[in-house]
Amino acid sequence: MKKKLKIALQGVLGSFHHQVAQRYFGAEIEPVGYHTFEEVAKSVENGTVDYAVMAIENSIAGAILPNYDIIDRHHLYVVDEHYLPISHNLMALPGQQLSDIREARSHPMALLQCKQFFAQHPAIRAVDDVDTAYVAKIIAEQQLTGLAAVASSKAAEYYGLEILAKDIQTVANNFTRFIILQKEQPVREASPSKASLKITIRNEKGALAKLLTLMSAYDLDLTKIQSIPVMSKPWEYTFFIDTLIADESKFEEALDLIEKKYGTVKLLGAYQNRKG
Amino acid sequence: MKKKLKIALQGVLGSFHHQVAQRYFGAEIEPVGYHTFEEVAKSVENGTVDYAVMAIENSIAGAILPNYDIIDRHHLYVVDEHYLPISHNLMALPGQQLSDIREARSHPMALLQCKQFFAQHPAIRAVDDVDTAYVAKIIAEQQLTGLAAVASSKAAEYYGLEILAKDIQTVANNFTRFIILQKEQPVREASPSKASLKITIRNEKGALAKLLTLMSAYDLDLTKIQSIPVMSKPWEYTFFIDTLIADESKFEEALDLIEKKYGTVKLLGAYQNRKG
Repeated sequence: MKKKLKIALQGVLGSFHHQVAQRYFGAEIEPVGYHTFEEVAKSVENGTVDYAVMAIENSIAGAILPNYDIIDRHHLYVVDEHYLPISHNLMALPGQQLSDIREARSHPMALLQCKQFFAQHPAIRAVDDVDTAYVAKIIAEQQLTGLAAVASSKAAEYYGLEILAKDIQTVANNFTRFIILQKEQPVREASPSKASLKITIRNEKGALAKLLTLMSAYDLDLTKIQSIPVMSKPWEYTFFIDTLIADESKFEEALDLIEKKYGTVKLLGAYQNRKG
Repeated sequence: MKKKLKIALQGVLGSFHHQVAQRYFGAEIEPVGYHTFEEVAKSVENGTVDYAVMAIENSIAGAILPNYDIIDRHHLYVVDEHYLPISHNLMALPGQQLSDIREARSHPMALLQCKQFFAQHPAIRAVDDVDTAYVAKIIAEQQLTGLAAVASSKAAEYYGLEILAKDIQTVANNFTRFIILQKEQPVREASPSKASLKITIRNEKGALAKLLTLMSAYDLDLTKIQSIPVMSKPWEYTFFIDTLIADESKFEEALDLIEKKYGTVKLLGAYQNRKG
């Protein structure tokens, strides 16, 4: 019998992370839920699981996730990325009607993304909770009536709830970007079109502007940048940068030049850009 | 009687946020603890509290906090910043000795920052928990022996615990940056030396490099940059930027030029740089 791949996820099962894990690795996986992203990273680092699936960017409400820092500290590598179109659904115990629902609970970001639906349904009070799928779990476990969850269709399926209103998010075209993580440095695939880098530069006037001008000259188009404070070393700045790669040899040249002229580069991963 | 200022904080009382609130506003405040940063921002937005104190950068382990995005979405303004030197202490019920302690619980970041201490005290197992002050609270409420918390001296004072080991963090010079938030746009003070900006630019090749080159030319020295994805508008990029201001009139000129040539600027706050 083939051993199932163990995949670490943040949150309870039935979450968007769970959905991505199944889309990416197939149905035959063993998902392992952890409370925090930190624990997810640790489980990959110590070999408890084979891979992790981790949200790194959330569109629309524009969440900035600190996950690159966690990935760096736990010495993990990015092997791929995956974009999940976010679809929110109102779900409740089987047999419940929309008119039975007095309250809907979910993560504040999810509720925000369904603002219009709740404006059109003033009889349903939207209440913040810790997570999307967690509410679905509680409704199923405690057989709560009058209460709905706003979560993925995966959550409805997983906890046996019925979807009362489908795709209630306000903005279409709402994606969350996930990355796939592993412990070992992956063999570099041919012609990666995207890379995740940690760059540490000396804190000189205009140093970042110069770095980005260099990257632009080598056709590296930034899709993400996050600075992290290194207060104990005030002469250094660290950045997590995602960049599109137009030409692999130019990319290599640019990394060499950055190392030579500006500071140090750690390649967290080079992979295919999956954004359509 | 003078009405006490209500200050919103994330987490339980006795936290680093609580410590900063008292340092900044004095002892005579009414701290109000909320579970999430989102709720903290909401409480300022809807007028439940007068101000909020919010961590925005954590040095050393280098946490990237997504709080600027929350501040922007809830239409809040930054009125000031405050740097708190982070000091971790091992604390337990009064009467407990260091040799009684079998386990210490705290936030994973705090434990990481005290790595050396735990290496020197192998009899004490370091266990991740959700928060620093929360563990102190639980120890006091449930009168737990053999267990210690790693938290601020404020937590020991607030929950009546005894400090068994003081300043156990590995790196000295470890600061967390906090910002003070309010609902109304503050009257601009004379000669601010720092500003927090939200800049949205058109996604053209090298646009960010050009923006930063412009800022550098106007003596604006970046201390923080975070991009946020606007996937529903792929032709736009949004950045949260903190910058030092060398000359207020040059700063004004630069903002005008950015608006004219690159995109839109929202000033989240202009204030004094408190970093020594």
